[in-house]
Amino acid sequence: MKKIGILTSGGDCPGINATIRGVCKTAINHYGMEVTGIHSGFLGLLENDFEELTDASMSGLLNRGGTILGTSREKPFKKNASPEQQERRQLILDNIEKMQLDAIVCIGGNGTQKSAAKLAGIGIPVVSIPKTIDNDVWGTDLTFGFDTAVTIATDAIDRLHSTASSHKRVMVIEVMGHKAGWIALYSGMAGGGDVILLPEIPYNIQNIRDAIIERINKGRTYSIIVVAEGIPTDGVKRAGEYMAQMIEYETGIETRETVLGYIQRGGSPTPFDRNLATRMGGHATELIAQGNFNRMVAMKGNDIISVPLEEIAGRLKTVPADHDLVVQGRRMGICFG
Amino acid sequence: MKKIGILTSGGDCPGINATIRGVCKTAINHYGMEVTGIHSGFLGLLENDFEELTDASMSGLLNRGGTILGTSREKPFKKNASPEQQERRQLILDNIEKMQLDAIVCIGGNGTQKSAAKLAGIGIPVVSIPKTIDNDVWGTDLTFGFDTAVTIATDAIDRLHSTASSHKRVMVIEVMGHKAGWIALYSGMAGGGDVILLPEIPYNIQNIRDAIIERINKGRTYSIIVVAEGIPTDGVKRAGEYMAQMIEYETGIETRETVLGYIQRGGSPTPFDRNLATRMGGHATELIAQGNFNRMVAMKGNDIISVPLEEIAGRLKTVPADHDLVVQGRRMGICFG
Amino acid sequence: MKKIGILTSGGDCPGINATIRGVCKTAINHYGMEVTGIHSGFLGLLENDFEELTDASMSGLLNRGGTILGTSREKPFKKNASPEQQERRQLILDNIEKMQLDAIVCIGGNGTQKSAAKLAGIGIPVVSIPKTIDNDVWGTDLTFGFDTAVTIATDAIDRLHSTASSHKRVMVIEVMGHKAGWIALYSGMAGGGDVILLPEIPYNIQNIRDAIIERINKGRTYSIIVVAEGIPTDGVKRAGEYMAQMIEYETGIETRETVLGYIQRGGSPTPFDRNLATRMGGHATELIAQGNFNRMVAMKGNDIISVPLEEIAGRLKTVPADHDLVVQGRRMGICFG
Amino acid sequence: MKKIGILTSGGDCPGINATIRGVCKTAINHYGMEVTGIHSGFLGLLENDFEELTDASMSGLLNRGGTILGTSREKPFKKNASPEQQERRQLILDNIEKMQLDAIVCIGGNGTQKSAAKLAGIGIPVVSIPKTIDNDVWGTDLTFGFDTAVTIATDAIDRLHSTASSHKRVMVIEVMGHKAGWIALYSGMAGGGDVILLPEIPYNIQNIRDAIIERINKGRTYSIIVVAEGIPTDGVKRAGEYMAQMIEYETGIETRETVLGYIQRGGSPTPFDRNLATRMGGHATELIAQGNFNRMVAMKGNDIISVPLEEIAGRLKTVPADHDLVVQGRRMGICFG
Repeated sequence: MKKIGILTSGGDCPGINATIRGVCKTAINHYGMEVTGIHSGFLGLLENDFEELTDASMSGLLNRGGTILGTSREKPFKKNASPEQQERRQLILDNIEKMQLDAIVCIGGNGTQKSAAKLAGIGIPVVSIPKTIDNDVWGTDLTFGFDTAVTIATDAIDRLHSTASSHKRVMVIEVMGHKAGWIALYSGMAGGGDVILLPEIPYNIQNIRDAIIERINKGRTYSIIVVAEGIPTDGVKRAGEYMAQMIEYETGIETRETVLGYIQRGGSPTPFDRNLATRMGGHATELIAQGNFNRMVAMKGNDIISVPLEEIAGRLKTVPADHDLVVQGRRMGICFG
Repeated sequence: MKKIGILTSGGDCPGINATIRGVCKTAINHYGMEVTGIHSGFLGLLENDFEELTDASMSGLLNRGGTILGTSREKPFKKNASPEQQERRQLILDNIEKMQLDAIVCIGGNGTQKSAAKLAGIGIPVVSIPKTIDNDVWGTDLTFGFDTAVTIATDAIDRLHSTASSHKRVMVIEVMGHKAGWIALYSGMAGGGDVILLPEIPYNIQNIRDAIIERINKGRTYSIIVVAEGIPTDGVKRAGEYMAQMIEYETGIETRETVLGYIQRGGSPTPFDRNLATRMGGHATELIAQGNFNRMVAMKGNDIISVPLEEIAGRLKTVPADHDLVVQGRRMGICFG
Repeated sequence: MKKIGILTSGGDCPGINATIRGVCKTAINHYGMEVTGIHSGFLGLLENDFEELTDASMSGLLNRGGTILGTSREKPFKKNASPEQQERRQLILDNIEKMQLDAIVCIGGNGTQKSAAKLAGIGIPVVSIPKTIDNDVWGTDLTFGFDTAVTIATDAIDRLHSTASSHKRVMVIEVMGHKAGWIALYSGMAGGGDVILLPEIPYNIQNIRDAIIERINKGRTYSIIVVAEGIPTDGVKRAGEYMAQMIEYETGIETRETVLGYIQRGGSPTPFDRNLATRMGGHATELIAQGNFNRMVAMKGNDIISVPLEEIAGRLKTVPADHDLVVQGRRMGICFG
Repeated sequence: MKKIGILTSGGDCPGINATIRGVCKTAINHYGMEVTGIHSGFLGLLENDFEELTDASMSGLLNRGGTILGTSREKPFKKNASPEQQERRQLILDNIEKMQLDAIVCIGGNGTQKSAAKLAGIGIPVVSIPKTIDNDVWGTDLTFGFDTAVTIATDAIDRLHSTASSHKRVMVIEVMGHKAGWIALYSGMAGGGDVILLPEIPYNIQNIRDAIIERINKGRTYSIIVVAEGIPTDGVKRAGEYMAQMIEYETGIETRETVLGYIQRGGSPTPFDRNLATRMGGHATELIAQGNFNRMVAMKGNDIISVPLEEIAGRLKTVPADHDLVVQGRRMGICFG
């Protein structure tokens, strides 16, 4: 194994640069490999857009947000077996030959894992690393970026307590999570949410009303509601706005919403995410050195392992209804819907 | 002077508790006064809802967000000279007598300054302290809460740089400021905004487009747009959403918006705001001890001074078009509209 | 089971209040138990010093540092079987009877686990929860407080990079860890340390010198050295000061040290630690409800489990020489001594 | 005016890069000047070590700590009028001619202001910008870096409260400030220090003891002592260690110290400091464009002005004994020695 390519695809996420650094420094310093950084995800593979990475170019990356390689949502292949499909396939194979790459590391979320599996399918030696603030990639207990997103969301919830208590209001905060409520669950529990709504657990507005009213009857003059963006709404309004209106209507209590948005995915990763990203990057290089391809690096308990790429594609890791934090939250009196 | 009352009115803001602490500890330790905390702003004055404050009850307040006294947007008097008006006036005078208060400290924003002036108008000895994250109270160079809000907004802008650069996008962030663009100006300049839009400076969408296109021509693949919530829109959409749509339409570049919302006003105040709040609180007590009433505490340069309440009411401190940061920003190539 | 006591012993640590909250809210809301908070660790048990805890008194504890119950390093029993020993034993049994406690939750580090085992030895139903920023309690993969300490230490290391690079210096930072180097390892890796020294791995000053010189030869004008306080020194100087002097002597490069000290253990816990603390607190109450005593709550992989107290006492969890982060660090070129 | 040089000298400080950016972007975008960055302070002037700076190279500097130009404590001239003196003078004049510089911007603390005055003395057009976390440069109300240092120190003091209260201890924290106690004063007041000791105000250990004892008598079980590193000691121990030992001896209460050290000067500047640095940088370029040389940029109230360099040299701005925060602190019961 002489030369590896590395690309980052899909939404950006804190820790990508740290994992690029982990891949490169291990490859260069330990295995004497060369590393090529492919720009803008799979687009760079199609457009032959890349740069050589060195040990020196890894300086300052550990705590830097975003991805130095750029990213895109471009997929390497079109869905149907069109003539264009064939062309793209050949283009990619040609470019990889031009770049003289012996293997490719794909860093990305669920979509990227699918694309990586397809690259593997046309014979390219691939190792992938999961990355998403949403923590919804199947096959790994955790993804880097998640702890940072939870930290940002919890910090925001901490701040809302001041306003909620001073004004005796209900404050609704909408955090990211279309299909999986991991951020809502972890930040809601860490931030002292009174109601936490996940896409995985159906809610009943009466239960939410009752929970808020019960708090008032106990002398707690305000409530914090944490909702994932993917909970059911009227199909028009955003989750936060919808829930705030429903609660104000049902309880008569002044209710305000905040949508946390993009700040959840930016900025410097937490130390936890930096170390997870570093370990995953190093493990990816190990797999390549061993010739162990077509696998996704994963965390299992405390260990970094890998799983076959084909097992991942098309599956989503959602919050199980009996997740320990949900069970524990319910016991403490938190309403999950 | 034996006993003073203190109330907090209007939107909550970081540093209120620090200024309550400044008033109380000075009054109790230095002047041997007693201090009564009135609950929920002017509502507490109408409902005779209060508690006694002690030196011990000030413990832990310096870095605590919100207001321990609670707040409301209740005004002490109705607008017109109705019979109810007369009733409220008497109720307040009666309650102040019941509470045995010799003077009242009113902590609040522009609305509160008006109400404080009216209290003074019916013969109650009043001293007020300005408080708003918006920094738009006339008569004072700065208000506590502003530096904290700017810090939170700048932190959010810092985070958006990661996503904007990784995705080669335009990112629009909407910060607070209905009529005054102080937060947008200070956080936009500190966060490296490329376009900064304030309610005080009319914008032209062509200029904004040109600024973004010029950046791309120079090889800067992304732009950050900071907008105050009070800039002109189509009258339906929020400022951030409207501007993002306009920019995407005009430039064809993928544009996303974030509305920072309530997290700007919550949480622990910055050290700057804690010290400003402490000094203002202490100065308010000084004024009372001197019998120097119907004044608002203010900052002028580095000094804490006071100004007559009657000068404040009905005036708003907006960003002058030749503000040093605006001038400096323009020289550096930042587009202000 | 009707009434449980809870005490916190040993050094304070972020997350203690969150775990007290976890115990109490689960006990009160889910099991209908009563909870007594014992003051100042085992001292409160000897002096019958306590307060009743309610659901309402848990408000605001999730993100509050330190321990609301106070702590001490007092041990419940003296070492030798002296007459005083017998007295203390009786005093404790009498006080527990006075307080009408059916079980006691002991929250603490290694010393506390030993004391908890001794309490169990005289027939008191005990459940313990591990707590230490040092992460060195045997039997649990992680302790809350550790992630917060690592976060504070990493933030400090991030800051040192500015000064080190501006002045082309070697900067040495000493972090906590007498016998176990967990904080040094995790913060050193997350903060981009070039040399990381743990008590568990012997160092050779020549290797450290070579690592620094090699960096200079590669054009890296500065180095960051992270040392645990417990590494071998001359027996007089602190670890940081000693290492800084050795490095300056060996390399001739200006070297400065920083001792992080107590700020590592104070302040608000990270969301990670809040959730770990909450889960451990809830699990402790579960064990009591099940009558499953004389066990310490523990984390194993992602699960909260429990282990017999007798297995813990006298053992220390140190960093294994083949820990994944050490192995990964070495591959990336980091010097571990 | 065609081409300006810029150098940074003395200790690093948050905001230097922001002020370099302010100088450059104003010079390049507004005045069409060229800018040369001189490396390692005055050393680069002696060794002809420099790089050209462009608008593009200013990207990402606003929130980056340290100085991209590097710094040193090298002085341009030796003290006495030695032959070497004459040589250095000629070397500097020659190098400035080689670099084709029409003026030089010197960014630094008190030492740098002296050196800048000397450069002016041999006929080089100089404008200087004050920079120090210590805030002790004469002629300016504030220096950038100070707000950041105060913020870091206050955050540390906030953390110490947890440990101090949990253990009922006295905690002493030593912050920077050899001759001027600005950081101790501002962070001590913002962090809720009970005793604050500055080099400018003599202390009496009995007063400190009394203040601590009085707190205990009032039921406050712990105290926080903030000391500047420059307060008088026994001449051997550091200020923090000395004061901790004195307090423990005098009061019998367990006392621990923390020395904050280098982390006070590193890392990303606060928004306040970024804007101050930007304004000062822009103003320096203005002065050059106007041909207004041999002046130091300064803050006066809210305005950026300039003062003659000759007025600054050899003077130090210390905390006046009647500073508003000292007076206010005393009224609130804080002991200043």
